[in-house]
Amino acid sequence: MQVAICGAGPSGLSQLHAFESARQNGYSIPNIVCFEKQTDFGGQWNYSWRTGLDDYSEPVHSSMYQNLWSNLPKECSEFVDYSFDEHFGQPFTSFPPRTILSDYIQGYAERNNVRQYIRFNTVVRWISYSDEKQKFHVVVKDLLKDETRSEEFDYVIIATGRFSTPNVPYFDGIETFPGRILHSHDFRFAQHFHGQDVLIIGNGLSAEDIALQLYKYGAKSIILSYRTKPKGFKWPDGVKEVPLLVRIDKESIHFRDGSSHTVNAIIFCTGYVHHFPFLDDNLRLKSPTSLYPADLYKATVWVHQPRLLYLGMQRLAFSFNIGNVQAWYVRDLILGKFNIHNINIFCCCLIHIDYFNDKINKFKKFFQ
Amino acid sequence: MQVAICGAGPSGLSQLHAFESARQNGYSIPNIVCFEKQTDFGGQWNYSWRTGLDDYSEPVHSSMYQNLWSNLPKECSEFVDYSFDEHFGQPFTSFPPRTILSDYIQGYAERNNVRQYIRFNTVVRWISYSDEKQKFHVVVKDLLKDETRSEEFDYVIIATGRFSTPNVPYFDGIETFPGRILHSHDFRFAQHFHGQDVLIIGNGLSAEDIALQLYKYGAKSIILSYRTKPKGFKWPDGVKEVPLLVRIDKESIHFRDGSSHTVNAIIFCTGYVHHFPFLDDNLRLKSPTSLYPADLYKATVWVHQPRLLYLGMQRLAFSFNIGNVQAWYVRDLILGKFNIHNINIFCCCLIHIDYFNDKINKFKKFFQ
Repeated sequence: MQVAICGAGPSGLSQLHAFESARQNGYSIPNIVCFEKQTDFGGQWNYSWRTGLDDYSEPVHSSMYQNLWSNLPKECSEFVDYSFDEHFGQPFTSFPPRTILSDYIQGYAERNNVRQYIRFNTVVRWISYSDEKQKFHVVVKDLLKDETRSEEFDYVIIATGRFSTPNVPYFDGIETFPGRILHSHDFRFAQHFHGQDVLIIGNGLSAEDIALQLYKYGAKSIILSYRTKPKGFKWPDGVKEVPLLVRIDKESIHFRDGSSHTVNAIIFCTGYVHHFPFLDDNLRLKSPTSLYPADLYKATVWVHQPRLLYLGMQRLAFSFNIGNVQAWYVRDLILGKFNIHNINIFCCCLIHIDYFNDKINKFKKFFQ
Repeated sequence: MQVAICGAGPSGLSQLHAFESARQNGYSIPNIVCFEKQTDFGGQWNYSWRTGLDDYSEPVHSSMYQNLWSNLPKECSEFVDYSFDEHFGQPFTSFPPRTILSDYIQGYAERNNVRQYIRFNTVVRWISYSDEKQKFHVVVKDLLKDETRSEEFDYVIIATGRFSTPNVPYFDGIETFPGRILHSHDFRFAQHFHGQDVLIIGNGLSAEDIALQLYKYGAKSIILSYRTKPKGFKWPDGVKEVPLLVRIDKESIHFRDGSSHTVNAIIFCTGYVHHFPFLDDNLRLKSPTSLYPADLYKATVWVHQPRLLYLGMQRLAFSFNIGNVQAWYVRDLILGKFNIHNINIFCCCLIHIDYFNDKINKFKKFFQ
């Protein structure tokens, strides 16, 4: 049996670890291949100075900026069986810089002996399913050799992340704006905006984070434009929240409350979209990002073809943990330890809920 | 017979015009479909305020900036049977702004009645060839409907341009540079660099052009770093040429001649690469950009599968004209007016050379 995993970020690595630990415990496992377009594992946590396209003309995967620190307590991004304490040999701050998280992921991968399964510098070009052969036809490109080839698989696991393809909505008149326009995906250094008046569109996690970075690095003023409601934080001087913009007229931004401001740059902090340009239509998750994406049984199994599995597509902060849980579930499904037709859905939902209640309680305690 | 054309820029439009004019002259023509991922024709000349990915998460095609003026005399970018004088009804400056060229291309397309053949907002995902069926299998995605579908074709013509996928080489230490780094593909407004010291890597056409834009819009200093030799122009004060950089250490750029300079931003004007992520390996042009790309008979016919044709892949300034000439050649080849096995290669080369000699003489006269 042949299994393909697309992506060697936290979820893909969890999947490899799940299979490798079964093998080490004496189980017979399928032939596993993990395709990763980057030169190393880590997915989103592989920082790149590049924006737009990477050195092989593929879209840059990472949305990290140089001075990013985790904007969630690291306890929310902990693999189930590999703690930060174990990795670093000592307790560690809850909000570490990105290099620490990257190091932790590297440690997880190396400790679990999964490098052997990964074909780096290999991008997945096209996946289709043949009803006749009952196989997935997978076309990949070896970026170093500049060669494409195709292989057949019985199962395909999609673990390509959900923070790489920016959502950049159009606003009336934006084509007349002469300043810099970028999405947080392409944000690398806050000092580019030193002395500037900056508009941030959105007020989610990236918006908060980048607003405070800009403030620290000397932006002159920062306006956050929200769609639904303001955060209402006690922002530092020079940072304020206004309703959504309605129109742009050169440097002037006009907002829903009738106010207008002149800015030098616009940063979209408007989130990401699911994007799977390598999947045939009958395999492709089309749901917008949500807590329970449509057509995914247990947010994992593609209902139209249950041998296609998706990891980490839920809109949840606990992305490492959910990938972990899903990976073991997917492994046991593929190893035939249970059959999804027999399973008690309600019971499994409870397991999920228990798991997350436990995490959420830890999270709450943290802030007490 | 089914013919697919990929791209509705100047070359794709020439191809459509070639077929449509045959039809209007009473010839029976094949079923023609042109797939264009943008919302309108014009290819490279469709300016976009976006950088990186477009509104459907596809790589932005155009490399134009807001205030771009043609850096070639318009006489070099004239369609064979549709002059600028005819389009505008009067003589016109030789170096017009991009909007004028865009208008001219629109006029060419509308006059030639080719809109009927084009499926806009449709990106080509994957093309393979079946020896068994003797057909191309073409998978496209309708971006508006968010649906992929596949169709079969007897001929495929690639006209997706060669100025969209940036070549961005690595330089030692670039990941330590805290300023803005971009390729000319993502350059939109020179005023972003007002008051800044800017390094331009390269000294070709884009480099010249962007250096002078930066100068006009108040950059503090501009350094052009050349690989082979300096242009040696009488540059304005504040613009100078230095040899290639060898190392970057934060803001300090070290050059081959031992000199070093501190800059705020780096703009790569290092050209473009061929990139056809939608083509199977046995169909994909792998040659670097050159005057005569490898494996293309007459720079047009894919020697490994002569029913695959490429337009405008030569490294020539006369890109509109060459696309024009190739389009008529391709049309007559597909209509069976000649057979490439019988043709006198030497004779055809002479036709090309005569054609270009004529253009080059006009070009020389222009500067006399």
